[in-house]
Amino acid sequence: MSTTVENEWPRQVTVLGVGLLGGSVALSLRRTLPQTQLIGLARNPEKRRFLMDSGLVDLPAETVAEACQRSDVVVVASPVDRIAEMVILAAKSSPADCLITDVGSTKRQIVATVADHPDAAKKFVAAHPIAGSEKSGPENATSSLFDEKWVVVTPAETTSPELLEKAHRFWRLTGGQTCEMTPSEHDTHLAAISHMPHLVSALIAKIASPEALPLAGSGWRDITRVAAGDPTLWAAICSENRAAIASELKQVAEELEQLRKLLQDADDAGLHQWLTEAKKVKEQSP
Amino acid sequence: MSTTVENEWPRQVTVLGVGLLGGSVALSLRRTLPQTQLIGLARNPEKRRFLMDSGLVDLPAETVAEACQRSDVVVVASPVDRIAEMVILAAKSSPADCLITDVGSTKRQIVATVADHPDAAKKFVAAHPIAGSEKSGPENATSSLFDEKWVVVTPAETTSPELLEKAHRFWRLTGGQTCEMTPSEHDTHLAAISHMPHLVSALIAKIASPEALPLAGSGWRDITRVAAGDPTLWAAICSENRAAIASELKQVAEELEQLRKLLQDADDAGLHQWLTEAKKVKEQSP
Repeated sequence: MSTTVENEWPRQVTVLGVGLLGGSVALSLRRTLPQTQLIGLARNPEKRRFLMDSGLVDLPAETVAEACQRSDVVVVASPVDRIAEMVILAAKSSPADCLITDVGSTKRQIVATVADHPDAAKKFVAAHPIAGSEKSGPENATSSLFDEKWVVVTPAETTSPELLEKAHRFWRLTGGQTCEMTPSEHDTHLAAISHMPHLVSALIAKIASPEALPLAGSGWRDITRVAAGDPTLWAAICSENRAAIASELKQVAEELEQLRKLLQDADDAGLHQWLTEAKKVKEQSP
Repeated sequence: MSTTVENEWPRQVTVLGVGLLGGSVALSLRRTLPQTQLIGLARNPEKRRFLMDSGLVDLPAETVAEACQRSDVVVVASPVDRIAEMVILAAKSSPADCLITDVGSTKRQIVATVADHPDAAKKFVAAHPIAGSEKSGPENATSSLFDEKWVVVTPAETTSPELLEKAHRFWRLTGGQTCEMTPSEHDTHLAAISHMPHLVSALIAKIASPEALPLAGSGWRDITRVAAGDPTLWAAICSENRAAIASELKQVAEELEQLRKLLQDADDAGLHQWLTEAKKVKEQSP
């Protein structure tokens, strides 16, 4: 019966990179799939001990081959600049019908790199759960991180419909809701709604003077919240999605120039209109 | 005994403009000064009914003269572009030893305008509680809005030490902690830490495309939270503090250009350093 088959899948899931996102994938699956065995890659003994003590995974593995050899799903949750190589590595040791997916914030370069390795490409469906935190590390993982969040699934042109369907099914098991677009569409949209805003948030933090900083209120604190994010992760995201982000920054510069002109011309009505348009978009947002 | 005198003051407080901030002043005083009579200006019957029903004030008044005639403190909580005229009006009908203060987000123009009216200037100490919300209206007022928040007191050169001390004492009664600077220093710092960031937040919201908007995550939502603020209030703030804000926008444009160059040059190490500096400032912030 198909429900039986569904309930049996996935019997084993491997997480490569048990940080905030990888750990949250594990915790979210524990709720919906209590029987599923969770394997986490941990190369050093300390991390292995932490993974066991925290109950994030059932079994820590020391190598990618050991971690993947019997898994139905492998989730790669490394920093974006290391995802493609991990996918290719996981493909070598995982079963033929294994789904390999990831959590990277950029998709185009990862999908393109994996496409050059047909054995990996036929197991891989890239994905990006729109969920996260300025905090990092498995100690901040939560079982509800993906609940009702969008998970963008970005298949390659060669992805089989069966594997694609598996990817949707897997991500819904984490509590997320899935949608689909091409890797390029994803990167363009994310540059606009995540990567550029992250950099502008960091910019606002960076230029705050020591004299003004004590007067920061709740507005400034929220605007700059993500500036506390990990510079290494974000430098990697910028590097992978450079062109789209640069194009967004250009748009910011142009809009900023218009705004400066409204102020310079003392165009209070124009400024009111400008603020009203911003408020309107904000109110239409999720 | 001085404690008795302190406990007796202020016996009556008037709020001119019972919105989010004015209403929160009233609610915060209720906790520390249960005996103090609170008067609120409400020109139309509907607002008067609301103020009574909500318990925000003890007595609604129909005119500024009626509202101020027996008060020890008058708090002007109108939009910034109407504060100076309200202060001047309140000074005409309030007792000789009345403290008039305000909650405006800009200070230089207000203090300068009031300075031209010596009868008002001798009762007025400008102030700015660094507290607020993207929400507005008395229905969103809370008794704890000012708790442990900075209230910047910005005396004029002519302000007497006695009146200044009264202003500090009054604002501490709301739960806030006071600090002091000149109106110009205040406006320069607030342009940097509040007004410019508000505009940039609105800018990020304004340029979000309808295609990308559904993918907005918690980062975008926090960065753009204040973009939901009242355009009329913010247009007035910009108008009052135009030069300082324009200068801050110029600095944003310059920093943005540096950032674009880091991306364009594929200077990943430079970008990492840039993000690290932003994170450092964020972590030093209150």
